[in-house]
Amino acid sequence: MYRSHTCGELRSAHINQEVTLSGWVQKVRDKGFMVWVDVRDRYGITQLIFDEERTPKAVFEKAQGLGREFVIQVTGKVIERVSKNPNIPTGDIEILVTDLTVLNTAKTPPFTIEDETDGGEDLRMKYRYLDIRRNPVKNSLLFRHKVAMQVRNYLSNEGFIEVETPYLIKSTPEGARDFVVPSRMNEGQFYALPQSPQTFKQLLMVGGMDKYFQLVKCFRDEDLRADRQPEFTQIDCEMAFVEQEDILNIFEGLTRHLLKEIHGFEIASFPRMTYAEAMKKYGNDKPDIRFGMEFGELNEVAQHKDFKVFNDAELVVGIAVPGANSYTRKEIDKLIDWVKRPQVGALGMVYVKCNEDGSFKSSVDKFYDQEDLAKWAEATGAKPGDLICILSGATNKVRAQLSALRMEMAERLGLRKPNEFAPLWVVDFPLLEWDEETARYHAMHHPFTSPKPEDFSLIETNPGEVRANAYDLVLNGNEIGGGSIRIHDKELQSRMFSLLGFTPEQAQEQFGFLMNAFQYGAPPHGGLAFGFDRLVAILGGQETIRDFIAFPKNNSGRDVMIDAPATIDDEQLKELHIKLNV
Amino acid sequence: MYRSHTCGELRSAHINQEVTLSGWVQKVRDKGFMVWVDVRDRYGITQLIFDEERTPKAVFEKAQGLGREFVIQVTGKVIERVSKNPNIPTGDIEILVTDLTVLNTAKTPPFTIEDETDGGEDLRMKYRYLDIRRNPVKNSLLFRHKVAMQVRNYLSNEGFIEVETPYLIKSTPEGARDFVVPSRMNEGQFYALPQSPQTFKQLLMVGGMDKYFQLVKCFRDEDLRADRQPEFTQIDCEMAFVEQEDILNIFEGLTRHLLKEIHGFEIASFPRMTYAEAMKKYGNDKPDIRFGMEFGELNEVAQHKDFKVFNDAELVVGIAVPGANSYTRKEIDKLIDWVKRPQVGALGMVYVKCNEDGSFKSSVDKFYDQEDLAKWAEATGAKPGDLICILSGATNKVRAQLSALRMEMAERLGLRKPNEFAPLWVVDFPLLEWDEETARYHAMHHPFTSPKPEDFSLIETNPGEVRANAYDLVLNGNEIGGGSIRIHDKELQSRMFSLLGFTPEQAQEQFGFLMNAFQYGAPPHGGLAFGFDRLVAILGGQETIRDFIAFPKNNSGRDVMIDAPATIDDEQLKELHIKLNV
Repeated sequence: MYRSHTCGELRSAHINQEVTLSGWVQKVRDKGFMVWVDVRDRYGITQLIFDEERTPKAVFEKAQGLGREFVIQVTGKVIERVSKNPNIPTGDIEILVTDLTVLNTAKTPPFTIEDETDGGEDLRMKYRYLDIRRNPVKNSLLFRHKVAMQVRNYLSNEGFIEVETPYLIKSTPEGARDFVVPSRMNEGQFYALPQSPQTFKQLLMVGGMDKYFQLVKCFRDEDLRADRQPEFTQIDCEMAFVEQEDILNIFEGLTRHLLKEIHGFEIASFPRMTYAEAMKKYGNDKPDIRFGMEFGELNEVAQHKDFKVFNDAELVVGIAVPGANSYTRKEIDKLIDWVKRPQVGALGMVYVKCNEDGSFKSSVDKFYDQEDLAKWAEATGAKPGDLICILSGATNKVRAQLSALRMEMAERLGLRKPNEFAPLWVVDFPLLEWDEETARYHAMHHPFTSPKPEDFSLIETNPGEVRANAYDLVLNGNEIGGGSIRIHDKELQSRMFSLLGFTPEQAQEQFGFLMNAFQYGAPPHGGLAFGFDRLVAILGGQETIRDFIAFPKNNSGRDVMIDAPATIDDEQLKELHIKLNV
Repeated sequence: MYRSHTCGELRSAHINQEVTLSGWVQKVRDKGFMVWVDVRDRYGITQLIFDEERTPKAVFEKAQGLGREFVIQVTGKVIERVSKNPNIPTGDIEILVTDLTVLNTAKTPPFTIEDETDGGEDLRMKYRYLDIRRNPVKNSLLFRHKVAMQVRNYLSNEGFIEVETPYLIKSTPEGARDFVVPSRMNEGQFYALPQSPQTFKQLLMVGGMDKYFQLVKCFRDEDLRADRQPEFTQIDCEMAFVEQEDILNIFEGLTRHLLKEIHGFEIASFPRMTYAEAMKKYGNDKPDIRFGMEFGELNEVAQHKDFKVFNDAELVVGIAVPGANSYTRKEIDKLIDWVKRPQVGALGMVYVKCNEDGSFKSSVDKFYDQEDLAKWAEATGAKPGDLICILSGATNKVRAQLSALRMEMAERLGLRKPNEFAPLWVVDFPLLEWDEETARYHAMHHPFTSPKPEDFSLIETNPGEVRANAYDLVLNGNEIGGGSIRIHDKELQSRMFSLLGFTPEQAQEQFGFLMNAFQYGAPPHGGLAFGFDRLVAILGGQETIRDFIAFPKNNSGRDVMIDAPATIDDEQLKELHIKLNV
């Protein structure tokens, strides 16, 4: 038996008990006649005391030889601490050690195993197994487990069945993003790793499973942007005999349950917003509504004067930044530089300072009078003390630019509070989006997403206006997940394919087995998927997912700890019927 | 709203309520003036009645046009059935339908959607989504979910944390069995899919996670034997600061919990048997102990006469088959043919009939008298009425042969009862096994398995005799899983590698990152893994795992439903920096 208790367990009530603990040496303080050692495990830290008078000599000397991260086992008596430490749960006691075994020595770790470590990101990734010993990472993994258990138990109680779908599947039309796996037994053929279990979950609905879920790894071979991983985890769900409302209710229930169980945060019902409204009010389909700064469209009140920049613009739109009237000219110039950075891409910015006395001072005073500016303030909801920031240009572009500015200002003003939660359903997404490159419409979600029946008449005349039964859950400005009601009618599906530019033959080749399955009695169905890594991070009050993944990959898709990917030998390539082409 | 109730929900208490149901048409009986339709969903079957007098004419006619597996929605009143059906929970009621919507039509399915279907294995696999509608498959998937939830909740309550380990890892020394994934971003390099998360779980122990588990997909590119899948699910576990006893206790607790929760089957503690004992008594390291027929070794009582076959044999060993004295000469000859089949490989079989009067009749009466045969009966535990079957030859071979015969006879005698559960720990596995092909010792489990300290002195002189701290859980003659205490001492690990024929350089290259990790304070640790597919099948009273996997692959590793693996296009190959070599 290596331990009678964990290092986080002992309290005053245990005083005088003989106990055995095992763990890692966090810290050694050697005063010559007395040695204190903090021993650490997953559960906490306990102080050990070795004392020249009361500890056997051999044990005392061994204690003096301990180094950081040595693995030890000690036996001793729980005693009351002279100077208690109220910051840790075991702070009232310490162990007077009578026996010490070094279970393993340790090289000095390349960074300190402390909450605030001296190790940089790269070093910590290389030695991830040491990084995991640190509270911030360890607690993130414990938290992830807790959330996963909550999700599973909630959905299971709601009648959902977790079904494991296969990992070795078939390459899909969007094949370029598939990771593939050469088959040894089927010469010249490849499996693909799933980007999502989409088709399988739809087949499970055809199979009558009724309510399906799965916490499942998915794979996407994309050039990695920051905070993207080539393998990621999804809460994947599908339901039969449901309408959009049923699905929103279930997953609103799940999210509410998580917020309550984890944070004690209660919210009666989640607001809903159409995609059109979100774009108009926030320039973004995943608005952070923890704070205001809603867009005010100014075309009507800004295009009547001689200011050509505004008059030529498709959209003139502004936000009122609370309290930013105090910005100096220099600070505002820096802000203008910020919006002109290529990542944002605005050509310039007009501003209006809203003075406490109700007057306005703008960068376009040449063109607009106080009455004009008062109307701008009204449209943007600006109050005395605010700074109105106005961008103009092509609608889509200027909305994205102003959205970026809005988020930046919220960040600067501390309005994106990690412990506040503002969920939001964005509904009525467009069915199709125009792709400049291929000069045709693409399915915004996927080709099985159903259009809203009332919009379907527009499908030939004005396809871009057709809304889908598709929805996203947004939490604190992050897309947590989304889904749609699927098409289950063969006729409608055929029309959709032809609209998306598929010949019947192509549709059959690419979606054949699902189309075939649909001939044998497909129920109405729909579903959604949540990005689990991001959900956990946001619930944990973080924006970055990496600490919530035990062994993440870097931006080149490498695991720097195990040094993967790596070369494989010629014999193996030969068995797989492939050659390198480098 | 597609339904107010499911098809398994309505009872007498609902009589007179108006309800809406949705589901699939199981059966239509059209009597001309009356039509009965059974409608089915995941939850059950409800009888609908359409009646010329009481049902609107249009609805009645629509009902007459329904076909098998059409998807329908009906509204109507719950009424009492005239002739009740006690075999289904909804058998007391039926729905007098007032409204019927055909949500989807269906082609006639290629096999009947009944518990006993007319579809063969291949057809059912091709249309797996229809096969899943059948109770036996559907219930197996529901059962799997239930077991998975029990496992997760049990381990979570025991303080285990589920940590997701990566799927895109590095090819291992036993590389030939790895599925690999070419990296687009890292030219000429490959990820490998994990055969198990072994190294990652050991790193989690180095990282202080203390108690880890995961229900995780694993991958092995082996030539598939019957009932093997290229992707399979494991309950993977690891614990730090534990001895073998701690691990056995936890997972005995888990298994006992499952047997109790699922089958109400209680068992105080699992018997334990050493590997040596299992081989001696059952010729097998995963004996089915639901029945007896223990081996009786007969060397002492069968090698004193002139029977050369026995005298030349390393081992003479028999079993007493209960009640098989009644076998005719012809039946026994067929049994002898059975043991001589190449799959078993015996050269012949000696038998002794134990007559009810206490006398014996054997095939070797020429050589042995009644007194000899009485001793054989004693050694094999044979009673009057039994048939003693005796094989002889080289120890390992003859044990395997007799084990096969023992299982065959148990099968024929109906002793392998699917609803009886006989768990067993097999412990003290050999550390090493001799490989004829490479003429050297291999790690029986893996190179990190720790030898028993008391046997370690034999390691240079008699390596084959060294026992490991390794154990298997056997249930009803199936290996459910196994594990070991790992080596955490660097010295011991180095000696193990050299014993296994690794140079220090090779050891570093192949196990480098784990060895490096071990330098930073590795705790004593150990663990185990259960094969989840098999565990679920056995708990479900089945021997074959395929029905417990939603979308299994066939023996060539193909998914015949989606037709994977498949070719991919040249563009994609080029992006992945590989060429075909076919």
